[in-house]
Amino acid sequence: MLAFSKFNWLTLIVAILVQLPITPVIAGPGTEKTLPNGLKIIVKEDHRSPVVTSQVWYKIGASYEHDGTTGISHALEHMMFKGTKRYGLGQFSQIISDNGGDENAFTGKDYTAYFQNLAADRLAIAFELEADRMRNLTLPAAEFAKEIEVIKEERRLRTDDNPVNLATEHFYANAFLLSPYRTPVIGWMTDLNVLSVDQLRTWYRLWYAPNNATLVVVGDIKPEAVFALAEQHFGPLKAEVITPPQLRIEPQQLGIKRITIKIPAKEPYLIMGYKVPVITSQQDDWEPYALEVLSYILSGGDSSRLQRELVRGSQVAASIDTDYSAFSRLPELFTLDGSPAKGHSIAELEASLRQQIKMLKQIPVTEAELARVRNQLIASKVFQQDSIFYQAMEIGLLESVGLDWHLADKYVDKLSAITAAQIQAVANKYLLDDTLTVAVLEPQTMDSNSIPSNSSGVSNVIR
Amino acid sequence: MLAFSKFNWLTLIVAILVQLPITPVIAGPGTEKTLPNGLKIIVKEDHRSPVVTSQVWYKIGASYEHDGTTGISHALEHMMFKGTKRYGLGQFSQIISDNGGDENAFTGKDYTAYFQNLAADRLAIAFELEADRMRNLTLPAAEFAKEIEVIKEERRLRTDDNPVNLATEHFYANAFLLSPYRTPVIGWMTDLNVLSVDQLRTWYRLWYAPNNATLVVVGDIKPEAVFALAEQHFGPLKAEVITPPQLRIEPQQLGIKRITIKIPAKEPYLIMGYKVPVITSQQDDWEPYALEVLSYILSGGDSSRLQRELVRGSQVAASIDTDYSAFSRLPELFTLDGSPAKGHSIAELEASLRQQIKMLKQIPVTEAELARVRNQLIASKVFQQDSIFYQAMEIGLLESVGLDWHLADKYVDKLSAITAAQIQAVANKYLLDDTLTVAVLEPQTMDSNSIPSNSSGVSNVIR
Repeated sequence: MLAFSKFNWLTLIVAILVQLPITPVIAGPGTEKTLPNGLKIIVKEDHRSPVVTSQVWYKIGASYEHDGTTGISHALEHMMFKGTKRYGLGQFSQIISDNGGDENAFTGKDYTAYFQNLAADRLAIAFELEADRMRNLTLPAAEFAKEIEVIKEERRLRTDDNPVNLATEHFYANAFLLSPYRTPVIGWMTDLNVLSVDQLRTWYRLWYAPNNATLVVVGDIKPEAVFALAEQHFGPLKAEVITPPQLRIEPQQLGIKRITIKIPAKEPYLIMGYKVPVITSQQDDWEPYALEVLSYILSGGDSSRLQRELVRGSQVAASIDTDYSAFSRLPELFTLDGSPAKGHSIAELEASLRQQIKMLKQIPVTEAELARVRNQLIASKVFQQDSIFYQAMEIGLLESVGLDWHLADKYVDKLSAITAAQIQAVANKYLLDDTLTVAVLEPQTMDSNSIPSNSSGVSNVIR
Repeated sequence: MLAFSKFNWLTLIVAILVQLPITPVIAGPGTEKTLPNGLKIIVKEDHRSPVVTSQVWYKIGASYEHDGTTGISHALEHMMFKGTKRYGLGQFSQIISDNGGDENAFTGKDYTAYFQNLAADRLAIAFELEADRMRNLTLPAAEFAKEIEVIKEERRLRTDDNPVNLATEHFYANAFLLSPYRTPVIGWMTDLNVLSVDQLRTWYRLWYAPNNATLVVVGDIKPEAVFALAEQHFGPLKAEVITPPQLRIEPQQLGIKRITIKIPAKEPYLIMGYKVPVITSQQDDWEPYALEVLSYILSGGDSSRLQRELVRGSQVAASIDTDYSAFSRLPELFTLDGSPAKGHSIAELEASLRQQIKMLKQIPVTEAELARVRNQLIASKVFQQDSIFYQAMEIGLLESVGLDWHLADKYVDKLSAITAAQIQAVANKYLLDDTLTVAVLEPQTMDSNSIPSNSSGVSNVIR
């Protein structure tokens, strides 16, 4: 039950899978079928182990929400575990667990996804349960009254009491004026305080339907068998009239923005973000890939520029990272964030980062750097292929943001084809002060008066 | 058909009425009645001339709107002139005009208001027409298709092609993260582009009802006669279920924000805004009044501090103003804005303004200054009483933001009671960097690439 604020392929994949042993890639190319009710099913065979991952991805998330009801997608995700007419409170998780599986869910800006990892011969169990809760959720008011308190506690713990996350939330809300990417996935506390179960019912009816979902299955299964099983369980569900989400286009940013965030914290923190295109919003298809490679040149691994120059070299930075994903429904930010090392200021850190960006604009990256990125990319793809879960996740994400899932197979080739000249071109075209937002966390002592009023200082158990 | 972004009593009243001859105040105290369908009627007698103003104030405006459908209240105001079943396109204005009257409407953040100024014996005509369009608007799709283009042209002319207004729009949208006061009354162009007549129909049905309106009549009339006439025309209208607007509470600002706006313009421009309370949101009732007096001390008239010190004295400023209204539905900004004089920079102007604020915090204002403000207030109240239109406007505004209209009679007394210590107190409590947003318009040459993409450069006729 995670609220993903940002999804970065490489970071996540490498972080999680880097310690797994490399095995030969034997996953099939994948095949798809769409049921008459609109449910799209994508199946990939991977027979290395007798297991399967089953994932239902709904095209709904925080970027579909409107002011006043932010956080509703994530709240609904929580309530998806609170029972249907057939399977009561807690039974979903219990049944999966009894069958030796694990399951969970996560909400992002562009999607809400549910997954089960099971022995391959138990796939029907996952399908029956997911098909049931796709249309038959009961949403009991009493359960919602309890669960919304859990969600608010989750928000206090992860955002209000976490200085970097709170700063990041304010950064996005200030960087974007109108784009729904300004909205935190968990929702604003003021909205959570007034969210009603009736609003959730409407949200559920509007978006949870076979024709707004992608079913992704990867593992030790045969596509024909999966399609037949899906037909049996999901086939009877009725399609819903899905109204495309309203286009809320970000107005052109007209100059640099700087915000200061004074909150109780131990370390200062800097986050800088440039407005950049993503694949869905871009005619010149190569530009987002060039931005991904640029991000990797700066911060991909220990031998990346920022690690080498700013952390180990000048030692201005204690930590530093970049973040960008080419796979989003709407234009995104290219961010650089980090903390200065002891004895160095935020201003020095920003100056160093600007110097790095200036170099990218003026001098082409070297072939050696490009080769390093390519090797890392290929390695991470191999790691990724080792996990049936992440193979399915890649497919589900691409489909959910409106892209063709086959793009997953082209990703490494697309990135590998990027040239030094293209990286220089996107640096000069997009990393401009006029679309930059800079947020600085200025730590206050813990007894400061600046503690935000919605911060409780207390963190309890979260689900 | 004005889209008011901000309403400042004194500025507006003084600006419009300062040249009128002063006549003895003979307006009555006013009386009210509420019809069974919820329509509140407030009548004030003023028998100096045989004229009357009739105003219908709806509790609906831009601050009720949600992202994606901004500008809908103002668009509906335009469509209120496009005919009902009984009175077709253009007939409303024609009938008023044929009877020697004038009429118009305006939309603000917290209200939409319609008025007619007529000979007192023609009041029934205004009532019949207003009652008719309160519930029977036809909203023809073809007319809306034409009118939305008129509105978009109005936006281009007044905002996109007006550097100060465009900068002000960005300033408010950045200063507030969640408060609906971040929304421009005219609406974002991206929303106007997709606004539909069906959305207007829903908006009209939700908010245009006798129990969401205040009818204000001031002039050469008797209350009993007005109540009877109102009963006759508005009495048959059915009440609507009015859902109170959703509370969208601004999160605490955690530090100063600075935004730069680089657009084609001739002059640089600075706007600074502090987050401050208003009467509706404030327990300590005197604070908003103290802020109003503080604003007046700084910029009320030629002998105010900013005029004396910055325009005529140091000559750092070419123009300078402050803006604050205690009468709003939600917490507001206290703003200072202006342009530097030739040879002076924005930085010098900001430093000078900060110096003025520092002085307000450190040194109590003088009794002479307070006396000057009191005299100006009393004079402006006299001027205001001279206009039946502004007497009605004051009442309508107060009722629309949820305050008691009798407050109008107490306003001068409340302000006059403010002490130097209270002004110093609110300066120290609210004019703080941590809730400050500073926006700077940096003029670009006219052939710059920075022209916003939604600016046409062409200004046509507006209604």
